[in-house]
Amino acid sequence: MDQLLRVMNFNISRDGIGAGPDERQSLEQPFGLPAPERLFGWCGATASWPMRTDPGGTRGLDDYFTRDFARNIGAEIMGRNKFGPQRGPWRDHDWNGWWGDEPPFHTPVFVMTHHTRPSITLSDTTFHFVDDTPAAVLERAKEAAQGKDVRLGGGVSTVREFLDADLVDSLHVAVAPVELGEGIRLWDSPEDLADRFHLEVVPSPSGVVHHLLWRK
Amino acid sequence: MDQLLRVMNFNISRDGIGAGPDERQSLEQPFGLPAPERLFGWCGATASWPMRTDPGGTRGLDDYFTRDFARNIGAEIMGRNKFGPQRGPWRDHDWNGWWGDEPPFHTPVFVMTHHTRPSITLSDTTFHFVDDTPAAVLERAKEAAQGKDVRLGGGVSTVREFLDADLVDSLHVAVAPVELGEGIRLWDSPEDLADRFHLEVVPSPSGVVHHLLWRK
Repeated sequence: MDQLLRVMNFNISRDGIGAGPDERQSLEQPFGLPAPERLFGWCGATASWPMRTDPGGTRGLDDYFTRDFARNIGAEIMGRNKFGPQRGPWRDHDWNGWWGDEPPFHTPVFVMTHHTRPSITLSDTTFHFVDDTPAAVLERAKEAAQGKDVRLGGGVSTVREFLDADLVDSLHVAVAPVELGEGIRLWDSPEDLADRFHLEVVPSPSGVVHHLLWRK
Repeated sequence: MDQLLRVMNFNISRDGIGAGPDERQSLEQPFGLPAPERLFGWCGATASWPMRTDPGGTRGLDDYFTRDFARNIGAEIMGRNKFGPQRGPWRDHDWNGWWGDEPPFHTPVFVMTHHTRPSITLSDTTFHFVDDTPAAVLERAKEAAQGKDVRLGGGVSTVREFLDADLVDSLHVAVAPVELGEGIRLWDSPEDLADRFHLEVVPSPSGVVHHLLWRK
């Protein structure tokens, strides 16, 4: 079976925004948003959320999606802005990402950046810094995934870049019931992708509306 | 984490019926129904259905559920009527279940029956025939599952027996848009279980309505 490139548990507002304006990203605001939990609070509430540290959590529809986070995933691709708030040449080589000593990926992670640096291994996650086209990075990630699928982790600009290159096989986008007005936009409407993807829309009692898209 | 007892991908009609009247079960009609695909056709359409032999299949919401069939499952419990159409003492010891040489379970399976017989191993599935209470069978199944969850596979009467004993932790029931009128009934309404279970109801574009219940 083919290896898929999958966007999973990707959170945006009702007006299509997944992160604040680029210049607002900071150590204090990884998403450039004052209250990012308005976008992804539904994930953290579920029993299967990979970053969950407390017992408990919900077991309903939302949990079905967060349980899929690691399933059959052998590698992740992310943009540099998901890895950290620095721009341009790396000034702080001690920066190891937002996730502490136990990142939730447990696979190779390919960080796209024009400023490469040596790979970093934290527990069972290794970050590779790659300066290449989406197609070339995907090829490396698929090889590293050893037959499993590849997760496209974001941020928004990175997802758009892979969509523009027509490399994405499926997306699970959770649309939160908030309007953000400004920031980086995934789409004006999911219908933007209707020519290339099937679309299924599933409202959750938590208030988010899960959008499932897969290649026609 | 506790091991759960889970009902998964369990199919019933809008009027709550999961199988035809007991006396109608036969080699030709395992569910005692003339057109059982009216109940479970949605499963077979998905890409992840464990019995799928052809490539392809849908990748939407329904597929999220069928993909869960084997996930973190270490054993199954089923009633004898799910295993085969014979009643009373085993006359046909060559009967090895409906599933051929490669049953889709890939774990130990505990078949509840008053008529025990030696265990049968087919590929990586072993059927054990046990004459005991639901609580005692669950204990054996949990031990065999080695920390993973236990699937309660049905049929309807077996699910009801475990519900009556208050041993079920979660249920995923797919309600198909058909009325059967007569047969073995899981519930008159999902509200029958509302005192003990949270209920989330998710309609699928395929026409089935997924009911997710988990213990309060």
